[in-house]
Amino acid sequence: MNLLLLSETDFPDDHVLGDRLSSEEHRLATIADGRVTHLKRVLKVEVGQTLTVGLIGGSIGRGVVLAVGANAVRLAVYLDQAPPPTLPVSLVLALPRPPMLRRSLEAVTTLGVKRICLIHANRVEKSYWQSHSLEPEAIDRRLRAGLEQACDTVLPEVSMHRRFRPFVEDELPALLSASTGLVADPTFDSAPPPRDLAPFTLIVGPEGGFVPFELERLAAAGVEGIGLGPRILRVETAVIALLSRWLV
Amino acid sequence: MNLLLLSETDFPDDHVLGDRLSSEEHRLATIADGRVTHLKRVLKVEVGQTLTVGLIGGSIGRGVVLAVGANAVRLAVYLDQAPPPTLPVSLVLALPRPPMLRRSLEAVTTLGVKRICLIHANRVEKSYWQSHSLEPEAIDRRLRAGLEQACDTVLPEVSMHRRFRPFVEDELPALLSASTGLVADPTFDSAPPPRDLAPFTLIVGPEGGFVPFELERLAAAGVEGIGLGPRILRVETAVIALLSRWLV
Repeated sequence: MNLLLLSETDFPDDHVLGDRLSSEEHRLATIADGRVTHLKRVLKVEVGQTLTVGLIGGSIGRGVVLAVGANAVRLAVYLDQAPPPTLPVSLVLALPRPPMLRRSLEAVTTLGVKRICLIHANRVEKSYWQSHSLEPEAIDRRLRAGLEQACDTVLPEVSMHRRFRPFVEDELPALLSASTGLVADPTFDSAPPPRDLAPFTLIVGPEGGFVPFELERLAAAGVEGIGLGPRILRVETAVIALLSRWLV
Repeated sequence: MNLLLLSETDFPDDHVLGDRLSSEEHRLATIADGRVTHLKRVLKVEVGQTLTVGLIGGSIGRGVVLAVGANAVRLAVYLDQAPPPTLPVSLVLALPRPPMLRRSLEAVTTLGVKRICLIHANRVEKSYWQSHSLEPEAIDRRLRAGLEQACDTVLPEVSMHRRFRPFVEDELPALLSASTGLVADPTFDSAPPPRDLAPFTLIVGPEGGFVPFELERLAAAGVEGIGLGPRILRVETAVIALLSRWLV
């Protein structure tokens, strides 16, 4: 955890300010849930220590530890910086198996993706759609872990699309009206386009790839094929490898 | 498994050739170990089916299934293609915690790295050096899984260096005599150099980064600092993100 993510509910008594911090504008946060254990046991916070903090959906800054109690930690919070820039890429990902989904959600959040569409495809096992990893709380945990890693505050929006063709025909066009659609597969020769041509919608298939019919539907929707050379990468490796092309 | 990795010991009766395959040059392989289970249960191989195969350290090609027995699978093997190109990057990685080490070894092998130096650093927990994941057989398993994923045959060379300063002073210079040394850290502004300036030696620190003294020693050895922007990435994400810059 490189950033402590705060919500508005962490500021129950914003109006109570201590003397010793009166010279700058700040807010008073009281952390009183599971994060207390992490703050005390892992980060071993002490009074006077400064942490990097961020308000979910808002700015980042620092939090000075005012008090460490049995069940709560109190911080004076200064929020004065913008979160890091967003990656100009929406990700459309054929639903991977659950452990890979969890790692991928966290990694792509770390990289700054703000829109993730999980879709069905022929080579996606139907059972994956029953996974507990798709429950809103489980997804939220992975996204927050990614934000805390990257010192970001803006949660990605995650949507699920259990039928391939309706997604491509009814929902993909809206994404492509504002971005260049790219589908990654080892069979394509073109390298990913440079960052200055962004925004992109990057579409990544399941292990084993999209079937020919699916690639045809994507091509018909105006999506271009790209590749990273002859090596066949795991989906989670490929997603990071592709997205990182557009980081800087 | 996208490629079945064969060793010379898989060709015990190379000289016995069946009639029906006499028109092309081929070799006869008999698989009789743990891979049989994978071939039968996961790949569900049948007589006449063609698999992608490769000889460890050698060429890749195809294997036609001649027989599927209770404890063995026999293949006619045609090896006629070079493995995919090597990534022109040596990786020096501060030893990560064991699960991340296992995933990273597999991922960087998939990406085509052929030289991996695992080193100690101030923020590497000493207990990591006791991990079973560092035993030769455990490392070999991850490397082979990476080759089988990427359809490659050339095992990376992995070395371990339990003291930072002797590595930097006595061993790094030989690597840097033939490559440009780069150390990745979010504190550096320069983006990774383009692929045509390869070969590189990429140095990646532990979670939390190298300490200032270590960065100074690397700078003194002639290593340049690079970054991927303000986001702090997990080590395994950063390694893939950096290496993939030089894939194509």
